Amino acid sequence: MAVYTHLGAEDMAALIAAYDVGTLVSAKGIAEGVSNSNWLIETTGRAGSPDGSGSRYILTMYEFRIDIAELPYFLSLLDHLSAHGCPVPRTIHDRDGALYRTIGDKAVALIEFLPGISVSAPSPGQARAVGGELARLHLAAADFPATRANGMGIAEWRRLAEACGEAGLAAIDPAIAQAVAQDLPRIAAAWPTDLPQGVIHADLFPDNVLVLGDAITGLIDFYFACNDITAYDLAVTHLAWCWDTSDGTFREDLSRAMIDGYEAVRPLSAAERAALPLLAQGAAMRFMMSRAYDWINTPADALVTRKDPLPLAHRLTFYRDNMGLFD
Amino acid sequence: MAVYTHLGAEDMAALIAAYDVGTLVSAKGIAEGVSNSNWLIETTGRAGSPDGSGSRYILTMYEFRIDIAELPYFLSLLDHLSAHGCPVPRTIHDRDGALYRTIGDKAVALIEFLPGISVSAPSPGQARAVGGELARLHLAAADFPATRANGMGIAEWRRLAEACGEAGLAAIDPAIAQAVAQDLPRIAAAWPTDLPQGVIHADLFPDNVLVLGDAITGLIDFYFACNDITAYDLAVTHLAWCWDTSDGTFREDLSRAMIDGYEAVRPLSAAERAALPLLAQGAAMRFMMSRAYDWINTPADALVTRKDPLPLAHRLTFYRDNMGLFD
Repeated sequence: MAVYTHLGAEDMAALIAAYDVGTLVSAKGIAEGVSNSNWLIETTGRAGSPDGSGSRYILTMYEFRIDIAELPYFLSLLDHLSAHGCPVPRTIHDRDGALYRTIGDKAVALIEFLPGISVSAPSPGQARAVGGELARLHLAAADFPATRANGMGIAEWRRLAEACGEAGLAAIDPAIAQAVAQDLPRIAAAWPTDLPQGVIHADLFPDNVLVLGDAITGLIDFYFACNDITAYDLAVTHLAWCWDTSDGTFREDLSRAMIDGYEAVRPLSAAERAALPLLAQGAAMRFMMSRAYDWINTPADALVTRKDPLPLAHRLTFYRDNMGLFD
Repeated sequence: MAVYTHLGAEDMAALIAAYDVGTLVSAKGIAEGVSNSNWLIETTGRAGSPDGSGSRYILTMYEFRIDIAELPYFLSLLDHLSAHGCPVPRTIHDRDGALYRTIGDKAVALIEFLPGISVSAPSPGQARAVGGELARLHLAAADFPATRANGMGIAEWRRLAEACGEAGLAAIDPAIAQAVAQDLPRIAAAWPTDLPQGVIHADLFPDNVLVLGDAITGLIDFYFACNDITAYDLAVTHLAWCWDTSDGTFREDLSRAMIDGYEAVRPLSAAERAALPLLAQGAAMRFMMSRAYDWINTPADALVTRKDPLPLAHRLTFYRDNMGLFD
């Protein structure tokens, strides 16, 4: 959470003038995004808007990690999903139709603001709704023409594990080193190769979902989106949502609601259902590895809050020991 | 700039329920305030609002520096000034009429959201307008009943200088150590005791002023407000606004516009006008000292961006060498 770059009001007003959104009324740097700087801005609204009421947008400046060459994939995916009725923010194109602009050596994009809040302790109704929206996303993306490889796949888990080193992982917690030594080779060996693939969000944690009551008002932060096993996306989302964050226990009610919600829109094949426990172990390994790497390489007083990898080791063990969970 | 405390959506919704502002629609942590955490929130609006349109607020959690016992001064001052027509955000009182609430051991207040942006390079029209609004603030606060001593007065400049040490100041820049050795005793000895006093903002830098074009839409961040020499507030504002930030040179046009704008509302007495160059040197000393202290005591990679004290040493010298500036 941070704003890494100072962008003065004059610079921002000049940037906004490149879009048909009216003039700047307000701009607040917001504490979201670990790789980007973000501002919540309000303008007088696009020319000819019916009531002259203001419009709100998120202005994102891409600071780290994201290759500008990949921006068209992420930003046109937002447009594609939004056009197909998914609750995803549209990209606002500039007056020349461009998806993003550059300021100095950095790319910036203007994105629709969506209402809603991110919950810490989801309800079954919310778990059901997010399952349904994830399935709709998978269906809506079926005819999205571009592709992007998953940069956070098994090869990357291995690379991160080596970069951390066994001693480094054990210093965080012995359970993490043990999971890497024992579970990573097993998961990699058993990883399915014949399941349906498509565009996946790949990071649909509760802080990337906006809700009002039980209704999903926004799926956001698509910067890990890629083409990979569709059911793996459901496994990631299950990993992210179906636990009591206060004591770490599995929440059967949230799990059932999410799977039911997903299958009401896109029923799983028998092969997908059977693979879910393994895919969920892989999802746990993926986030455990990236968090462990960040834990070791982020100063404790840095701008970004470190996330503890240890709960993911516990969830991995749970999925491993409950292979009949989704039967 | 930071959000120091995580406040979950559920906690925030429970807090909002204590106010007659409807239910939570959106909440974004914003990167403002060095002593507070702040969120820009939107709600469905207070009961019986005419069109059901949403309402926006700033939710502030007081993290450091601010003594809860002083909150009623700051928050009721906002209400007083707002009621007198100043462009100042009102404090939203809870259903029991309280100005602030507590979450755990921290105080939180809900404050009106005001539109507008903070400029980096003010125009003469903006300098004139802020001068006028500052004078209106001084007049409107005349019958504000509470008082608060200035915690950033001469005694505090001396304390900060001693805490930094001559070597510490010289390590930032020799000009700072020299200004403390030579100018601080001279300014303190000559400090006026017979000028009109009243409530002052005491920190009206451009980032604490919201504008739309040349109109002032908000004066914000009153957490240094106190009772002190009224003309000192104009000196602080002059110090903060009337310079070219790209090359550090004095901007005669901004200076004249600000003084004209102020005097159009509240003419200065001959004694106030004569004292301005000394008061401005004191203002430069005050901000140079607090920035020097923070410079020495803030890690380079901390959440808060350090502000360079050196330009203030140059401004102090300019005021000292141009005692006829306001004649």
